[in-house]
Amino acid sequence: MTTTPKPGWAQTDLAGTVSRETGVPVEFDTDVNGAVLGEQRWGAARGLDTFVYVTVGTGIGGGGMAAGRLLHGLVHPEMGHMLLPRDPEADPYEGHCPFHGDCLEGLASGPAIEKRWGRPASELPPDHPAWTLEAEYLALAAVNLTLVLSPQRIILGGGVMAQAQLFPEIRRRVKERLSGYVRSAAILHEIDAYVVPPALAGRAGVLGALALAELAPGGRRDFVSQ
Amino acid sequence: MTTTPKPGWAQTDLAGTVSRETGVPVEFDTDVNGAVLGEQRWGAARGLDTFVYVTVGTGIGGGGMAAGRLLHGLVHPEMGHMLLPRDPEADPYEGHCPFHGDCLEGLASGPAIEKRWGRPASELPPDHPAWTLEAEYLALAAVNLTLVLSPQRIILGGGVMAQAQLFPEIRRRVKERLSGYVRSAAILHEIDAYVVPPALAGRAGVLGALALAELAPGGRRDFVSQ
Repeated sequence: MTTTPKPGWAQTDLAGTVSRETGVPVEFDTDVNGAVLGEQRWGAARGLDTFVYVTVGTGIGGGGMAAGRLLHGLVHPEMGHMLLPRDPEADPYEGHCPFHGDCLEGLASGPAIEKRWGRPASELPPDHPAWTLEAEYLALAAVNLTLVLSPQRIILGGGVMAQAQLFPEIRRRVKERLSGYVRSAAILHEIDAYVVPPALAGRAGVLGALALAELAPGGRRDFVSQ
Repeated sequence: MTTTPKPGWAQTDLAGTVSRETGVPVEFDTDVNGAVLGEQRWGAARGLDTFVYVTVGTGIGGGGMAAGRLLHGLVHPEMGHMLLPRDPEADPYEGHCPFHGDCLEGLASGPAIEKRWGRPASELPPDHPAWTLEAEYLALAAVNLTLVLSPQRIILGGGVMAQAQLFPEIRRRVKERLSGYVRSAAILHEIDAYVVPPALAGRAGVLGALALAELAPGGRRDFVSQ
């Protein structure tokens, strides 16, 4: 572990300690990458090698795979902080991200919804205008993810996505915004299978850790039953 | 080849024909991916496994690698059509992309600059306000690429980038917009090596094709001298 806002954990050799104490190989990755691995192995991304997983809750995080490998690169993706068009007339709320103001997380996370409308997101009825705006921002994010990564699927999870009415709205807007530019049947004709909820829900963390364990040096692909 | 706006080329079996006539293995990819391969093998991305290459000219195109593999996914990336924040007071020009209006290409390609200012980009002096605006849009795009892909480097090429004064402006804005959120020395301390021009310039196409040929089934890594 390097830097972290969690008190007492900075510079902790977590993987080394666990490995020494238990005598088993240890791999270490972000929680989102765990969910990415779990969804690919047992969930909504089975059979795919390029996809993204975005979790929309207290914050917005994202991870994914390209050509079968986890996205890492320089550090790791921070898709939740993507910059998007915002029309101040339609949405005067300036966003709450302490780093970027009106980035995706600043506009569309659970706390952003609560601050904009003065009530917790979970208390807003399904026909509240909050959800139209939320679908718009998540659609813009999905459009940019499509254009940058060309994923075979976009998985949207997290507490906010428990509002299932968001999915058809997001799908419709993704298609509309792309305007036929990405000429793939997945978008033009099968958008319902392109923007989807996760399949593992609350089990993604544990199952993702199992999938990660298989990738560890000395890890075995056969230690969990299919 | 599948669909293409070029008359007479749709559904042409180009790779098959060349392969049959010449008797050598053939690989087929986009011109941007050729440049990506060339820059990684001999140019500005040597030693990197995750980076992007964006070309800013008549249109804006982009490609890249993640964990050493070309980005393909569903079809291929169309980074040039990314959606970005636009402040209509600072820039009332509505963009010229026939598909998305004010996407990156609609706002920042060569023709967009010409339409906005009434003169070809190449005729605008280096201190023209056009370049401040151009740097802003390209910085926003670089920020989103950083957040989505976490590349180790962003290469900006194409005719518009011949305006070398753009680079320091883009770098400054990328750093400012990220606000220290991506805690990597590459961005915090070495931004000059993070956003860079290509090294191969006009030779990227041919050298990229050579790099691609090495990857073809039966291709050889030693047929071009290092």
